[in-house]
Amino acid sequence: MTNYLLTIRFDGSSYHGWQFQENAISVQQRIMEAAARMFGEMPVVNGCSRTDAGVHANRFCCNFKAPRFYPCENVVAAMNTYLPMDIVILSCEVADDDFHARFSCKGKEYEYVVWNAPVRDPFLHKRAYHYKYPLDAGFLDKQAKDLLGTHDFTCFMAAGSDAKTTVRTITKADVRREGEKVIFTFGADGFLYNMVRIMTGTLLYIAAGKIEPDSIPAIIESKDRLQAGITVPGDGLYLNRIYY
Amino acid sequence: MTNYLLTIRFDGSSYHGWQFQENAISVQQRIMEAAARMFGEMPVVNGCSRTDAGVHANRFCCNFKAPRFYPCENVVAAMNTYLPMDIVILSCEVADDDFHARFSCKGKEYEYVVWNAPVRDPFLHKRAYHYKYPLDAGFLDKQAKDLLGTHDFTCFMAAGSDAKTTVRTITKADVRREGEKVIFTFGADGFLYNMVRIMTGTLLYIAAGKIEPDSIPAIIESKDRLQAGITVPGDGLYLNRIYY
Repeated sequence: MTNYLLTIRFDGSSYHGWQFQENAISVQQRIMEAAARMFGEMPVVNGCSRTDAGVHANRFCCNFKAPRFYPCENVVAAMNTYLPMDIVILSCEVADDDFHARFSCKGKEYEYVVWNAPVRDPFLHKRAYHYKYPLDAGFLDKQAKDLLGTHDFTCFMAAGSDAKTTVRTITKADVRREGEKVIFTFGADGFLYNMVRIMTGTLLYIAAGKIEPDSIPAIIESKDRLQAGITVPGDGLYLNRIYY
Repeated sequence: MTNYLLTIRFDGSSYHGWQFQENAISVQQRIMEAAARMFGEMPVVNGCSRTDAGVHANRFCCNFKAPRFYPCENVVAAMNTYLPMDIVILSCEVADDDFHARFSCKGKEYEYVVWNAPVRDPFLHKRAYHYKYPLDAGFLDKQAKDLLGTHDFTCFMAAGSDAKTTVRTITKADVRREGEKVIFTFGADGFLYNMVRIMTGTLLYIAAGKIEPDSIPAIIESKDRLQAGITVPGDGLYLNRIYY
């Protein structure tokens, strides 16, 4: 058996997330169907992460084992012809037998994209969160630095999670402006359910004056979801990179 | 009557161009419907240009006369709530009575966006032309300079045009790279039918070695459409700016 590791990019607008579901179309299903056309049988494809409905990926990783060996460039070329236009395989490599896209993952990076202008952008419909009032990216970047480090992040976790531990280590928390986009980037060994969206919502609440500046350490300390800001919509969220 | 000048942006993917048609949805129809909801009667809306099916606009201008005066910021806010998410009004101003978005136009600028990478980009589906082989933007920029000036551009005009004259003055012809995008920008007092798409196709033919470098003056001189390159798809084309 050959263990193929794929790096893919997808526009999640039309999908109910990565994970296979009975009554909705998922990215995983599309990848499994494309692999089945190439290999003659449908493999189990392991994703690096579940993603919520509408969430996008610049670089998402998945792996599957197949009975036949094809050169990686052939896997990319053939499977891309079988995939819909909103999913693409960027690259393929052969991984060790025991490699698993989810369990081998050492860290992840997400981006959250805010369109910060008085009117919406037609080219970012379902691809960014529209926030009308001017944001000071430099100020938010400084506020975000309070997220760095190893903490119990219960305050930034949505209900309904079955995480064994709520302790995570955040290694990157940056906010930058690119034209009318304000981009929030978070890197960590792992994220709790909706954590990136709640951290972004909390920073936007600080920008709006609904939460006091420099409150993040106290919010983390409180372990109280109600102290943090809203969960911003999935439309602006991009899985940006996976570390193995 | 108040003469409103709107600057709009639209993702043209779902439209059969700007111009109203009986059996297809156009951007013009959507603007007229939104104006009708605001003003109680449907005005004639004049666009700065016809655009082909699937062509986009970063900044497109149109005007209409309505019996009632509203402050411009109210026109923007109200009409945007009536428009679909792929069309937005960026700004509104009150123009002189004799202003007409098309006849008052002194010049236009278009961009053509090429996605220059081995595999397609899911976020640019219907928004860029995918060209797989590496492009040298600096070389193409130099080639493009031969387009500048006042010439008879018959060689770059699609059949079926009823233009009175085929002489145009090109004031800008630039090619630049932004990451994996190669962007062609053309400014002129006006463009012939499909002219931007044929000029871009000709530059891509030079890149591919199908047309000799430094051939553009001879192609223009020939006045022969067959000497030029292909008409690239409308997906990559953006009306970028209008000069009044």
